[in-house]
Amino acid sequence: MVGGGQGALIGGVHRIAARMDGRFDLVAGAFSSQAERNRATARELGVDEARCYANYQALLNGEAEHEEGAEVVAIVTPNHLHFPAALACLEAGMHVVCEKPMTLSVDEAQRLAEAVRASGKRFVLMHNYVGYPLVQHARELVARGDLGCIRSVQVEYVQEWLSEAPGPDNRQAAWRLNPARAGAAGCLGDIGVHAFHLAQFISGQRVSEVSAELFSAVTGRELDDNVHALLRFADGARGMLWASQTAPGFENALSIRVVGEKASLRWAQESPNELFFAPLDGPAQRLTRRDDRLGADIARGIRIPGGHPEGYLEAFANLYQAMSDGLDGDIVSPWLPGVEDGVDGMRFIAATLASSRAAGAWTPLQTTEGEP
Amino acid sequence: MVGGGQGALIGGVHRIAARMDGRFDLVAGAFSSQAERNRATARELGVDEARCYANYQALLNGEAEHEEGAEVVAIVTPNHLHFPAALACLEAGMHVVCEKPMTLSVDEAQRLAEAVRASGKRFVLMHNYVGYPLVQHARELVARGDLGCIRSVQVEYVQEWLSEAPGPDNRQAAWRLNPARAGAAGCLGDIGVHAFHLAQFISGQRVSEVSAELFSAVTGRELDDNVHALLRFADGARGMLWASQTAPGFENALSIRVVGEKASLRWAQESPNELFFAPLDGPAQRLTRRDDRLGADIARGIRIPGGHPEGYLEAFANLYQAMSDGLDGDIVSPWLPGVEDGVDGMRFIAATLASSRAAGAWTPLQTTEGEP
Amino acid sequence: MVGGGQGALIGGVHRIAARMDGRFDLVAGAFSSQAERNRATARELGVDEARCYANYQALLNGEAEHEEGAEVVAIVTPNHLHFPAALACLEAGMHVVCEKPMTLSVDEAQRLAEAVRASGKRFVLMHNYVGYPLVQHARELVARGDLGCIRSVQVEYVQEWLSEAPGPDNRQAAWRLNPARAGAAGCLGDIGVHAFHLAQFISGQRVSEVSAELFSAVTGRELDDNVHALLRFADGARGMLWASQTAPGFENALSIRVVGEKASLRWAQESPNELFFAPLDGPAQRLTRRDDRLGADIARGIRIPGGHPEGYLEAFANLYQAMSDGLDGDIVSPWLPGVEDGVDGMRFIAATLASSRAAGAWTPLQTTEGEP
Amino acid sequence: MVGGGQGALIGGVHRIAARMDGRFDLVAGAFSSQAERNRATARELGVDEARCYANYQALLNGEAEHEEGAEVVAIVTPNHLHFPAALACLEAGMHVVCEKPMTLSVDEAQRLAEAVRASGKRFVLMHNYVGYPLVQHARELVARGDLGCIRSVQVEYVQEWLSEAPGPDNRQAAWRLNPARAGAAGCLGDIGVHAFHLAQFISGQRVSEVSAELFSAVTGRELDDNVHALLRFADGARGMLWASQTAPGFENALSIRVVGEKASLRWAQESPNELFFAPLDGPAQRLTRRDDRLGADIARGIRIPGGHPEGYLEAFANLYQAMSDGLDGDIVSPWLPGVEDGVDGMRFIAATLASSRAAGAWTPLQTTEGEP
Repeated sequence: MVGGGQGALIGGVHRIAARMDGRFDLVAGAFSSQAERNRATARELGVDEARCYANYQALLNGEAEHEEGAEVVAIVTPNHLHFPAALACLEAGMHVVCEKPMTLSVDEAQRLAEAVRASGKRFVLMHNYVGYPLVQHARELVARGDLGCIRSVQVEYVQEWLSEAPGPDNRQAAWRLNPARAGAAGCLGDIGVHAFHLAQFISGQRVSEVSAELFSAVTGRELDDNVHALLRFADGARGMLWASQTAPGFENALSIRVVGEKASLRWAQESPNELFFAPLDGPAQRLTRRDDRLGADIARGIRIPGGHPEGYLEAFANLYQAMSDGLDGDIVSPWLPGVEDGVDGMRFIAATLASSRAAGAWTPLQTTEGEP
Repeated sequence: MVGGGQGALIGGVHRIAARMDGRFDLVAGAFSSQAERNRATARELGVDEARCYANYQALLNGEAEHEEGAEVVAIVTPNHLHFPAALACLEAGMHVVCEKPMTLSVDEAQRLAEAVRASGKRFVLMHNYVGYPLVQHARELVARGDLGCIRSVQVEYVQEWLSEAPGPDNRQAAWRLNPARAGAAGCLGDIGVHAFHLAQFISGQRVSEVSAELFSAVTGRELDDNVHALLRFADGARGMLWASQTAPGFENALSIRVVGEKASLRWAQESPNELFFAPLDGPAQRLTRRDDRLGADIARGIRIPGGHPEGYLEAFANLYQAMSDGLDGDIVSPWLPGVEDGVDGMRFIAATLASSRAAGAWTPLQTTEGEP
Repeated sequence: MVGGGQGALIGGVHRIAARMDGRFDLVAGAFSSQAERNRATARELGVDEARCYANYQALLNGEAEHEEGAEVVAIVTPNHLHFPAALACLEAGMHVVCEKPMTLSVDEAQRLAEAVRASGKRFVLMHNYVGYPLVQHARELVARGDLGCIRSVQVEYVQEWLSEAPGPDNRQAAWRLNPARAGAAGCLGDIGVHAFHLAQFISGQRVSEVSAELFSAVTGRELDDNVHALLRFADGARGMLWASQTAPGFENALSIRVVGEKASLRWAQESPNELFFAPLDGPAQRLTRRDDRLGADIARGIRIPGGHPEGYLEAFANLYQAMSDGLDGDIVSPWLPGVEDGVDGMRFIAATLASSRAAGAWTPLQTTEGEP
Repeated sequence: MVGGGQGALIGGVHRIAARMDGRFDLVAGAFSSQAERNRATARELGVDEARCYANYQALLNGEAEHEEGAEVVAIVTPNHLHFPAALACLEAGMHVVCEKPMTLSVDEAQRLAEAVRASGKRFVLMHNYVGYPLVQHARELVARGDLGCIRSVQVEYVQEWLSEAPGPDNRQAAWRLNPARAGAAGCLGDIGVHAFHLAQFISGQRVSEVSAELFSAVTGRELDDNVHALLRFADGARGMLWASQTAPGFENALSIRVVGEKASLRWAQESPNELFFAPLDGPAQRLTRRDDRLGADIARGIRIPGGHPEGYLEAFANLYQAMSDGLDGDIVSPWLPGVEDGVDGMRFIAATLASSRAAGAWTPLQTTEGEP
């Protein structure tokens, strides 16, 4: 693990998720650039002192020497380190699990994509919300045509935790509000990109253009803390995307509604064990994780029967489980987010920033020659 | 009553609402331009044949002659007749209740506003959703500062009933999809303007600019059936507005969320007897119509105790009740929508149409000299 | 109208409900035994002074003399007057709308049933909650076998308004807590009997035995304010019934769940425009008032489309509408509660009181010879 | 681990829960009485073949010999083995985690309680639902007087999975419906006892008497699959308890409502991250896991912030975490269910069976001399 020192949130989540199915052991780490914090974290986690490294380069060197060196690296640092660390890991022959936003720019993202292809290694991007079984089922409903042609996608990701200027001890807020470490996008890069990914994931369509307004609700903040955006999809659907980190009363309110010609669906992360499907010609349905109604590929990620709530950690663990399935055998999980999703995400961020600077002008997401 | 012949929806709603508190009697009407339908409607409603008129001009002439002629006219026709009928009624000395959208253009709206001022008569615009007690309470929460400075307003009005091309017998759909009778705005004028009004009403802020995309989801439709819009408010808040009449599973889903620096609120028309208030510094609250917790002005519109659901008809009736309060005595209901709300609505429609034609360019709502 | 003077709740509800569809006019009344309150009520309601009577006997005499005397009497007094007033009205040739509980005893109830049969007049018992279209639809789902054999019925009616000893000015509480005016049953007679009726109505089964515990949560109260009961139905189902008027946070929480071998359903009065149907072999469904999915008989009681909430007053008005249908023509509404429902209700009250006194012993509901 | 062979449900849950916080390793097991299944389970779980034992006695012997023998045994067998296995483990000096119902009789339960006291070892009874942070918070709300004196407790645990006669391959159903392995109580012992425990846990009151009706909804079933019961608590509250395993549409619907003189609360296991608190003198509140609003003792069991749903596995893991806290250090978790809760549960089962056989007679829960 690179990052995830004491006081960080997401590192601990990765550790629980990786451990949940007993398929990964944490054997080494570069948890913090602060030496004392680094060592203390290793001690707390039971990581051998010899395998607690000062930084990711030292980790790669050290593990290369080790008889049973680590095979997978989880990168859970602030944003600006994702790219160099991931690149180095791939070049060292490691599989990589990486937090989002994947890089600080489209260019970095494309270079990383090339590196993944060249390496032959697995690269999993932690768009963890698609690990929820019912999100995967929603995608399947769209894919098999139950909604008909998609008309409108309404997606939002709304939080309250940055409603006020954070206190000086809030380590998570500190780097997220600092352009040098978070990149040019604030709320947009932190959670807007999750909403974007979810919208593409379920709708099965790619966003082609965006018209956006970014703004900061809290005075003195350098980065956006709110995103209001209109979307156009390549296959004709339109959408709206709202992201905010300054909305009192919203804890972690990621939700999506997809409207098709024959039916609509909606799902909300805070109540993840139900999915609503509302056809034009019949009553609305509440779908749950009852095992026998979901596809076999989805059911592998269900550990307990319907009515026994699964949550954020289980969904998160499903990405580790699916990665492990891919490493150990030949089970491919087509839903597992990878480096191309990261390229898309960085293109979305870039286009949204550009549109907002251009007074909301419709701005195309960059495409590579030959891409659809 | 002008309009509201057999087969119409909203005419019957007006009649029930006007009757609910026993303060209005239906005494005369020009219900339909088709003579037979007109007479049949009068018979069904128990309106004297002599007071069933061929059109609104005949009605105004006839009632002027009548000993106890009508005092209030409800205009419930297709959109294109709202303006001429209302103007004629005012000039004939009638009080007017008028359906929305008030007119077909900003110019007509401004002329009607002048006519109202000149007449000294009451003019109520049927933005009926503000008749719900908890909508009025939401407005009061904002006005008294419980939310702090407003940051974002998310409003939507979504229906399914035009999801498919309507059959030939659907009288309501026929005129709403015909530019000659509905005006230049389809979904935008029919329901988008309700959402706009609600957003201004609760937030206490006026929309100053809009960036919009209108589109038709159903092939061959001349008017928009979907509205995606970003909003800017004069006092600094931003907003998003979604309106659609082609969304399966959404029956009459008008809802609003207002985000302030200290708290958020949300209300949904399909569950109108609860209002959610979520402060940053405490648990979310579910507010209801328990009489003793609402202001006296609001409580006048509550007929039964909390827990006994009130609905659409009661809210609608509250506009008639408040109008009657104003006619009979000197009780002023500051929330009652009037001709200035109609001017605002037409400005919103005009700016939204213009923005959509201009590829979503931010477009100011027209203001009159001297207005803020 | 008999009863319903100023300060009463239910009288006003009857008046709005009767007026809603324009089929009834209030022409006469004996609103209060206090002369001044009686006259003031008449004035407020626009009832001719000459037809404002000192009591129901005077009303019957007076109206008998009148050229266009009243045809229907609504009895909305405290409980102890229901029986004598209803009996007198029937004997005077009036149709009767009567509040529940119908009488103070099973014996009175049976005598009233005989009087109804002898009179040939209509008698409607105001179990108003079955006026909700979705309650009628729930009954139909059971009747047509969609739930299969019924296993369990869970019904409850819970309020908070008597959580504390009421103040001296609370006229409604005063008589309800007084055995001389309310009868031997407190909460049981006031709302428990509604729950009982709803359980029989939807399940299509009759309660045959009850095992109950009545208690008073507020010290010093002579009548029960809480009912805990187990039920047995004649056709084999079991049930549980909870009624309380001392439960903070519950406004008017009547709800029911019916469990069958193939599916369950649930409905709650505070959210009356949705009915949940959950089959064993498919996802749970949310049913609404979308007109085209309910039977024609039910749809007559729907005034506005799905998504436009209807509430307590509309449901209440449906009993008046159905009564009127029966008076004016030959439309029979089989769901309309009548005197036999009142007999059943009184039997339930009597058996529940007896069971509670006998330490919860299973106590059969009295039956008449020849009854099933 | 004793029990939990392939095809079992709860064994896997224990394993994930024990692993979640990295404090327990699975080192040995007697997973199944079928040798092949036993070995296959060990292989799948990575348990050393030498520590895969034929039965619990062999396990205790083997581990006693082992240098680093197991310290804690989780007993996850069918019910009839809980008692002998737990007794043997305690006598062998093991700490024990045991599934419910704890034993087959009150007598066994009392003997086990004595064994626990004599052993000085930890004994955790897997009433896992009290591991939810908001259940613990509910208990605290009651304990600190926010509800005032408790009036009524409504608890239910309803499932659908035994709605029909199960197929021959359903291993879980097979033993649960067999009196020789499940004991005399079916649904009552399987889930009714969870509801009972939750009612006592949150209300802080002990059930003193029960009046019950047990029945089987599915023909030919030897054990009850439904429980309808009225409760009396020692401190004066009353309650109702409904448990069913034959209710279509109910997946794992454990829920509770506690009514006090000042406020009510409600919580439902299928939506475990919200707790509703409704005071008489203010709006209803929705409480969540926002860390800073729960007590420090509760917050230890929260792994991720509010809005990131936690579920069944995390709650389950909290019992393991709390047990570990008690083993490693001196952190006492007063909410952790132990052997005395098991004695109470068996007394409840015995009294309920007796009451049902005695036509619902109020039946006291057995007490030991000197107990309150």
